[in-house]
Amino acid sequence: MSYDLLKGKRGIIFGALNEQSIAWKVAERAVEEGATITLSNTPMALRMGELDKLADKLRCQVIPADATSVDDLTNVFQQSVEILGGKIDFVLHSIGMSPNVRKKRTYDDLDYGMLDKTLDISAISFHKMIQAAKKLNAIADYGSIVALTYVASQRTFYGYNDMADAKALLESIARSFGYIYGRERNVRVNTISQSPTMTTAGSGVKGMDKLFDFADRMSPLGNASAAECADYCITLFSDLTRKVTMQNLFHDGGFSSVGMSLRAMATYEKGLDEYMDEDGNVIYG
Amino acid sequence: MSYDLLKGKRGIIFGALNEQSIAWKVAERAVEEGATITLSNTPMALRMGELDKLADKLRCQVIPADATSVDDLTNVFQQSVEILGGKIDFVLHSIGMSPNVRKKRTYDDLDYGMLDKTLDISAISFHKMIQAAKKLNAIADYGSIVALTYVASQRTFYGYNDMADAKALLESIARSFGYIYGRERNVRVNTISQSPTMTTAGSGVKGMDKLFDFADRMSPLGNASAAECADYCITLFSDLTRKVTMQNLFHDGGFSSVGMSLRAMATYEKGLDEYMDEDGNVIYG
Amino acid sequence: MSYDLLKGKRGIIFGALNEQSIAWKVAERAVEEGATITLSNTPMALRMGELDKLADKLRCQVIPADATSVDDLTNVFQQSVEILGGKIDFVLHSIGMSPNVRKKRTYDDLDYGMLDKTLDISAISFHKMIQAAKKLNAIADYGSIVALTYVASQRTFYGYNDMADAKALLESIARSFGYIYGRERNVRVNTISQSPTMTTAGSGVKGMDKLFDFADRMSPLGNASAAECADYCITLFSDLTRKVTMQNLFHDGGFSSVGMSLRAMATYEKGLDEYMDEDGNVIYG
Amino acid sequence: MSYDLLKGKRGIIFGALNEQSIAWKVAERAVEEGATITLSNTPMALRMGELDKLADKLRCQVIPADATSVDDLTNVFQQSVEILGGKIDFVLHSIGMSPNVRKKRTYDDLDYGMLDKTLDISAISFHKMIQAAKKLNAIADYGSIVALTYVASQRTFYGYNDMADAKALLESIARSFGYIYGRERNVRVNTISQSPTMTTAGSGVKGMDKLFDFADRMSPLGNASAAECADYCITLFSDLTRKVTMQNLFHDGGFSSVGMSLRAMATYEKGLDEYMDEDGNVIYG
Repeated sequence: MSYDLLKGKRGIIFGALNEQSIAWKVAERAVEEGATITLSNTPMALRMGELDKLADKLRCQVIPADATSVDDLTNVFQQSVEILGGKIDFVLHSIGMSPNVRKKRTYDDLDYGMLDKTLDISAISFHKMIQAAKKLNAIADYGSIVALTYVASQRTFYGYNDMADAKALLESIARSFGYIYGRERNVRVNTISQSPTMTTAGSGVKGMDKLFDFADRMSPLGNASAAECADYCITLFSDLTRKVTMQNLFHDGGFSSVGMSLRAMATYEKGLDEYMDEDGNVIYG
Repeated sequence: MSYDLLKGKRGIIFGALNEQSIAWKVAERAVEEGATITLSNTPMALRMGELDKLADKLRCQVIPADATSVDDLTNVFQQSVEILGGKIDFVLHSIGMSPNVRKKRTYDDLDYGMLDKTLDISAISFHKMIQAAKKLNAIADYGSIVALTYVASQRTFYGYNDMADAKALLESIARSFGYIYGRERNVRVNTISQSPTMTTAGSGVKGMDKLFDFADRMSPLGNASAAECADYCITLFSDLTRKVTMQNLFHDGGFSSVGMSLRAMATYEKGLDEYMDEDGNVIYG
Repeated sequence: MSYDLLKGKRGIIFGALNEQSIAWKVAERAVEEGATITLSNTPMALRMGELDKLADKLRCQVIPADATSVDDLTNVFQQSVEILGGKIDFVLHSIGMSPNVRKKRTYDDLDYGMLDKTLDISAISFHKMIQAAKKLNAIADYGSIVALTYVASQRTFYGYNDMADAKALLESIARSFGYIYGRERNVRVNTISQSPTMTTAGSGVKGMDKLFDFADRMSPLGNASAAECADYCITLFSDLTRKVTMQNLFHDGGFSSVGMSLRAMATYEKGLDEYMDEDGNVIYG
Repeated sequence: MSYDLLKGKRGIIFGALNEQSIAWKVAERAVEEGATITLSNTPMALRMGELDKLADKLRCQVIPADATSVDDLTNVFQQSVEILGGKIDFVLHSIGMSPNVRKKRTYDDLDYGMLDKTLDISAISFHKMIQAAKKLNAIADYGSIVALTYVASQRTFYGYNDMADAKALLESIARSFGYIYGRERNVRVNTISQSPTMTTAGSGVKGMDKLFDFADRMSPLGNASAAECADYCITLFSDLTRKVTMQNLFHDGGFSSVGMSLRAMATYEKGLDEYMDEDGNVIYG
């Protein structure tokens, strides 16, 4: 279903890997809503994933870029403006990776070279992207920039490790640059704090399936899917949200505002059972 | 411009008074986007304002209701379902009034009878509205309920008085009921924290014009207008935001995330001038 | 152990009922730290509880007051100033009750007369207390006022019902009055958001024991006890925190900043087990 | 005045430069309260500043360390344990520097090598410090770790530049490590978000004097001084706050909870005057 919400708009989608990716769904929905887009991801992701398939389907071009390289990012914006025939109206940043998580380094045994990489790939890339675009004056006035984040930036989740810190940095960059780009060009910059999503990246987080289940039961509306996230991105790219900026917007079925739900507690209680003595009193270990 | 975002949807708009009202703009935009609606306000507001004019223009009916009366609210939902021919998909609560503010009682000299009225009209009415609707099962599954609020709920603004407390209560009710209605019927409940807006209600707040100017200079995108707020409401009523609930969403040009802007500081500095000695040093009094 | 942190200070403690009460512990610790105090609670609480025992032990006077009565509260301040021989340096508000919770009315079936009582007893009483004190000029310059609250004000907890809304209102009142009383008299007003505590009041909340266990496992330091809360209150009453005001301070072993802990997840997972098929896949119902 | 709050405790204070430094005041107050301490700062700071003077006065040792060097930090903890005769009870991190700010690079023209340094010095150093200490098991059970931060981490302040992002990262590290160190050793980790303070570091921020004045008028209690911050740190190092962790604690005279004060507005209005026409109407440019 299409509303033509992005008719005539030009966009760049960073970070689509395969059909599970949120960025993949956003690309599809953006085109459905009338936008023309380019896609970008790292050369390695292009080899591993199926981005060409998406590009074929959407009849759009893929521009490889290492998101930590200012030159590569500059090239993406230059080429995109040329290919799409004008300034860019919207950008999606859906990029994140932690070598410490991959190598199973715990948070009290971080490798600092790896931490630098986590921050560079997952957060500073967002600054580089916007700075490169701004230097080229490549974003149209009233444009919209969105990055995907996770609530671990604000509350600690077991196993999320240095990605939590990277997401906190990412959200700060959105505020800091939203201030600058807003006052100069009316460009808005926001982050969407999305439910845990069973993407290739998401699956890498330790105990992700359990966290997914917990979040799903905590959220009155259940977890938000990648497709629903794409719908929400469309509203933020559209002209209907022109005064929303510097915000971290939770798209999570309510999870962020729930302390304890009945459904999650019911599950939790079952887990408690074996800690009860025969009189039903909790046995603390 | 219309996207048919609300095609086939039924809504109730509470609180439109005259053309300056945010609720007025929301009603107009909702109809433009394909919705059929009813309007509601107090009998007194109906006499003072120009709601009939809006109803004529939008070809919709007005159902008078005192928003503190459960019976009146129940009647609004019952009639609306009948008139519109089915369950309600969206509701706007744009209601607030403080007798203490009107009577210029300062916050350290509140009249408690008046405080009760402030809370009842501005916050508890939202609970009554939702409870009445839920008892009638008058809201369609995946419906969307929005109330308008102001950042004074979270930070203190000189002159905002007990309306700040009412708005904090209102935002809590949105969370509390969002939890319940979400898990049972997938109905979402959110508040929009809107820029200061030069409505009839807004103008009643002491020094509102100055606050308006300050907020406008602080916000990188400037203050959000009533018309822009209407656009944002449309996105929240649409099917594109089905997993957003229990949130307080700032629609304020970035104000809430700015501590001090260059523009506001420039104005502030001019005011400082006379506190400078001849060497340009600040004289603290 | 005493540090003489409150030597020479005068305080009023509202809400001690019995030895489990946080307010009881605060009274004991305040006196240990060198303060002289008065105690206050409702006439009914005085009959039900053991406040006389505490008053005997601490050699202080009890002044009965209905905390919703401005006259009663005015009397507490007048008498306390007289008994203690000078203006009041610190006040604890530890008062909360919801008839809706007691009568097991669910949040979508609130009795509005009862909601008014919940708000009046649990939140507006705090405003009345401060307004009464300020009108009498009964608080010493640089005085400190603290109310106890719970994280349910900011995130929804199953079963907490309209007490969540009351706590949100309470926290807003602390901000609003902190602004006024701070600029005029350097009096600070804060709320402490305390772990679930097994007091007589706390035990009334549905499923409290389970929530207590969940919070305990989520919090890296475990739940904060009533005695530990008393220690924390002492720091806020002392001269070492003179610039802390309008804050909601979490005293909860870290709970408020944890999204999911390993300990809680381990329990949760056990509850999940029966939702697994033989291959270990989660079966969603 | 001393309460012996830190009697018998051992601490390390990072970041004292001269008498204006908050860390300097914390060192003095910690010793007054009965602690024994070591001091640490970079070799360059030792040359520029007057740390030896402080060390003489407090009869404590200075251990030079580059806070971005894990080896140096490890050495500080090893030596401090030896010098002080046991595990460390409290640590203050008061370290921050942005080469981008120094070189007047604006936020849309950041040098990324410099950004790495900003983050490394101002935020990652905190992780390195705690990780080094934990690997040595150098912090006593129930120890307390505090870092100083600024509200720019959460709202954008003109001129604060990439230090805002660094502080956001710092606050996230406090939460992430607070979780780990809390559950394993009952060590708490918090940040204090301090008023703008006229230290050598603070003075480097563009327009700092004006921001200082603005914050002072916004805060009902005025800005918190370095000495007052030291008092507050003492409470967090003491045994009276053992269940406070993973928090960002505002010590700012109320600034963070004020949207607009009467005092600041009065100054702002004067700056507005010239935008008024002869009838007193605001002329928008």
